[in-house]
Amino acid sequence: MRDEPGPKTLAELAAVIGGEVRGDADLVIRGVNGLAEARAGDIAFYNNARYREALKATLASAVLLEPTSLPLLEGKEGKEGKAAIVVADPYLAFARVSTVFHPRPRFAPGIDPRAVVEAGAQVDPGATVMAFAYVGRLAKVGAGAVLFPQVFVGEQSEVGPGALLYPGVVVRERCRVGEGAILQPGVVIGGDGFGFAFDAAGMSHFKIPQAGTVEVEPDVEIGSNSAIDRATLGATRIGRGVKIDNIVQVGHNVQVGPLAILCGQVGIAGSAVIGAGAVLGGQAGVANHVKVGSRVRLAAQSGVMGDLDEGREYMGSPTQELREFLRTHAAVKKVPETNRRVRTLERKVEELESKLAALLSKTK
Amino acid sequence: MRDEPGPKTLAELAAVIGGEVRGDADLVIRGVNGLAEARAGDIAFYNNARYREALKATLASAVLLEPTSLPLLEGKEGKEGKAAIVVADPYLAFARVSTVFHPRPRFAPGIDPRAVVEAGAQVDPGATVMAFAYVGRLAKVGAGAVLFPQVFVGEQSEVGPGALLYPGVVVRERCRVGEGAILQPGVVIGGDGFGFAFDAAGMSHFKIPQAGTVEVEPDVEIGSNSAIDRATLGATRIGRGVKIDNIVQVGHNVQVGPLAILCGQVGIAGSAVIGAGAVLGGQAGVANHVKVGSRVRLAAQSGVMGDLDEGREYMGSPTQELREFLRTHAAVKKVPETNRRVRTLERKVEELESKLAALLSKTK
Amino acid sequence: MRDEPGPKTLAELAAVIGGEVRGDADLVIRGVNGLAEARAGDIAFYNNARYREALKATLASAVLLEPTSLPLLEGKEGKEGKAAIVVADPYLAFARVSTVFHPRPRFAPGIDPRAVVEAGAQVDPGATVMAFAYVGRLAKVGAGAVLFPQVFVGEQSEVGPGALLYPGVVVRERCRVGEGAILQPGVVIGGDGFGFAFDAAGMSHFKIPQAGTVEVEPDVEIGSNSAIDRATLGATRIGRGVKIDNIVQVGHNVQVGPLAILCGQVGIAGSAVIGAGAVLGGQAGVANHVKVGSRVRLAAQSGVMGDLDEGREYMGSPTQELREFLRTHAAVKKVPETNRRVRTLERKVEELESKLAALLSKTK
Repeated sequence: MRDEPGPKTLAELAAVIGGEVRGDADLVIRGVNGLAEARAGDIAFYNNARYREALKATLASAVLLEPTSLPLLEGKEGKEGKAAIVVADPYLAFARVSTVFHPRPRFAPGIDPRAVVEAGAQVDPGATVMAFAYVGRLAKVGAGAVLFPQVFVGEQSEVGPGALLYPGVVVRERCRVGEGAILQPGVVIGGDGFGFAFDAAGMSHFKIPQAGTVEVEPDVEIGSNSAIDRATLGATRIGRGVKIDNIVQVGHNVQVGPLAILCGQVGIAGSAVIGAGAVLGGQAGVANHVKVGSRVRLAAQSGVMGDLDEGREYMGSPTQELREFLRTHAAVKKVPETNRRVRTLERKVEELESKLAALLSKTK
Repeated sequence: MRDEPGPKTLAELAAVIGGEVRGDADLVIRGVNGLAEARAGDIAFYNNARYREALKATLASAVLLEPTSLPLLEGKEGKEGKAAIVVADPYLAFARVSTVFHPRPRFAPGIDPRAVVEAGAQVDPGATVMAFAYVGRLAKVGAGAVLFPQVFVGEQSEVGPGALLYPGVVVRERCRVGEGAILQPGVVIGGDGFGFAFDAAGMSHFKIPQAGTVEVEPDVEIGSNSAIDRATLGATRIGRGVKIDNIVQVGHNVQVGPLAILCGQVGIAGSAVIGAGAVLGGQAGVANHVKVGSRVRLAAQSGVMGDLDEGREYMGSPTQELREFLRTHAAVKKVPETNRRVRTLERKVEELESKLAALLSKTK
Repeated sequence: MRDEPGPKTLAELAAVIGGEVRGDADLVIRGVNGLAEARAGDIAFYNNARYREALKATLASAVLLEPTSLPLLEGKEGKEGKAAIVVADPYLAFARVSTVFHPRPRFAPGIDPRAVVEAGAQVDPGATVMAFAYVGRLAKVGAGAVLFPQVFVGEQSEVGPGALLYPGVVVRERCRVGEGAILQPGVVIGGDGFGFAFDAAGMSHFKIPQAGTVEVEPDVEIGSNSAIDRATLGATRIGRGVKIDNIVQVGHNVQVGPLAILCGQVGIAGSAVIGAGAVLGGQAGVANHVKVGSRVRLAAQSGVMGDLDEGREYMGSPTQELREFLRTHAAVKKVPETNRRVRTLERKVEELESKLAALLSKTK
């Protein structure tokens, strides 16, 4: 169930986000929006000179901006400028204000009689377990956690306090989902890792037991239909505050450092290590056992086949450092022309050679 | 439950598809198949000179083809040629005839007692809601819509008349699925978009509420395990008649124009715009805020980082126009040879330089 | 429910895997692990000279290795060497020993009263059907098969003996899942293939009925959230012993030969044929109607647009033979330098031309 929060004054919003009001503190704000989409009653944000025209044209009643941007709002010829809340980080302030108007929905605690909670499972009385949700033997569900319909929590798995598991989420046996984690619909935690030993005599791929688990640390969010495999032995780990987009694949025994960001359809093969705060662009892939350094920024569709140094930017498949990739890519686009120039040179050199030979024979 | 339609005469089929019979109008047809796979009693189609031999060899009892292809069927030495239905578009005619033999299954209307329909939800008496399907508060399900087991329809969401939601489909709160839309198993509509503002003080990614919705317009089909994110504000829109293959990711606020086609594993980042009738090849990716023009054709695995002009073909990552890509790609394959030629040239030029220098010193 | 197997002696383990004990046959082993992670009581494996140091340093109580590696274990100065089991294939032996310590869990047979088994379905008394699992009309579930909660088995589909279907698996109507197959959570078998004929008059994509099925042969494993489409007509086939990783897309009418391996996020378009024992790296894509030969090895992120010869290695998008790709890729990285060298040559040649021209005019 979603709260329907009422309008707020500029002063109330400024108090929430720790900003300073310019203009009418009693101005009533009813919602947030982008500069271009905002209407009267909305508050928008400005943090980039690219949007200076949009700032001038916006219908928003107030704007979140940095102190240095205030002159942009000055009224013309005696008219008062637009109201504002001055903040250090307008984008973060926008996120916080948006949360005021769109708070996380709250759900009545309790276990729906049409849910199944197996023997020995511990569901906190403050948790919500909806119809058709399934909680396995000896599993634990913390206070304030929410299991939507068709969620599966396997034997001995733990769902931390305040975690939000949307419909169709599967957490297989003995995995842990940390406090406040959000698993979008269809996320699979703890599917078997992909490990087989070829049996030449039996002409088959012999399955290596995937006896480990997955640890999803607190404040992680994982997007729709992503899959995090359990470890062969030990644990696959998704570090605190990591954000994973939709349809991402994380192999067995992968370690993702805190605050890393994996964009849509990223794939990480077994035992790779992703450093803290690294950002992997959409559809990028990382080979097994590779180490991606902390704060690496990886362009979309990159393919990582060897370790990457921390703090650097990479692109391409296989990856190069970003600057090198861009230089190479620009040069490559000229290769048809290069080939023509080489042909021209060959002709000229041949001509020179024959002329010189003629000259030499003459001067002998 | 699937109808088991009986055999049809050629005349009956011609009536359905608006074609003209050549040969025995009472010929009985029992099924459709490709030229190579067809057996006696089947009807096949021919629309491409590449399959001329297959047409000659086919065991099909009749063929769908264009008027201009009729001479290919002429009987030899007095024998009568194969029966045919002459149509303007044999492939479309094949699709229609196939629908005669494989009609969409029909389902008995009604709500299975083992389904859950929450208070205030409106399920049309002509809709089918199977066991373990869940319809949330204030949701609406139209006449003839079918919810398979384990489907989830969230609060205030709407499923249009005749829509078909296969097992495991999740439609989160306040989204709309249009009339006649087909969602294959595991499709997720309305998962949260991927939006965070970095909070340097708290060392966390602050979640930006994803308060918008998804509008899936009529006649859309979406493939297994694809995910369409809800908008941050406003709506992510999948236009009328769009067809999306399996495991496709569509980010928040994306707008996909009518009749566009997204092949398997395509990924579209937030706020991108895909023009009407555009065709995106498998595993292609589109960066956020980019505009792909109407009727663009994008090759598989392409990576779109900037706007693309309507009606053109593109390939590569980052994309180039198709012709340019092919030219570059051909030239690139010769680069090892180019390098060798440049080395040879360097040697020859050096030789020329020294010979010329010797000559000049002599002639001085 | 998981068995908790007790410790084993080295002799017992050697008997299971057909190896030969070196050292104390009564040594008690409690688990398996990698050389680096193992502790006292564990058995580890050694099969690669890269890990020679790890072998020296390991805390494992015993090691699985080849006869030729035995000298590496020799004790120093009178001390006895580490215990070992000598085997032909240490990695396969490791897999087998791991299975001793981590046996596949067993489940009590029977149909949970909170499951739904529709009329005419045949569920073997030795099968396990858990709460919220759904078995459609006329479906068959074999002895020892396990359907976890929220599994869907459609009308007339068959699940073979001993098959394991994890939560959220969907097997649509008339498909077959072979004996001992393992479907990880969220797998979709038999979603409609992606086939439409453009109807220019109706300005719509006319759906071509996908009336075929999927045959998943025995001993196949398919990873979380992968999707195997049903054929248009006939059957999509996943051959015996094929192993498919997570989030893989297999289009309609694809034929995957026995023992092939498809790594994470691979995509295979309609009617492609993958040869026996082929290995497709992560995120690789195969175009429709293409044939990939038996035992082909395809690098990650490759894009296959034409047939590939059996037994060879390929890389790139579009693919080249591996050696050719590597040669091209190395040369391409030098293209910026090549362009500089060409510019230098052009300058030098121009200089040569003018000097020679001057000389020629002088000598005339």
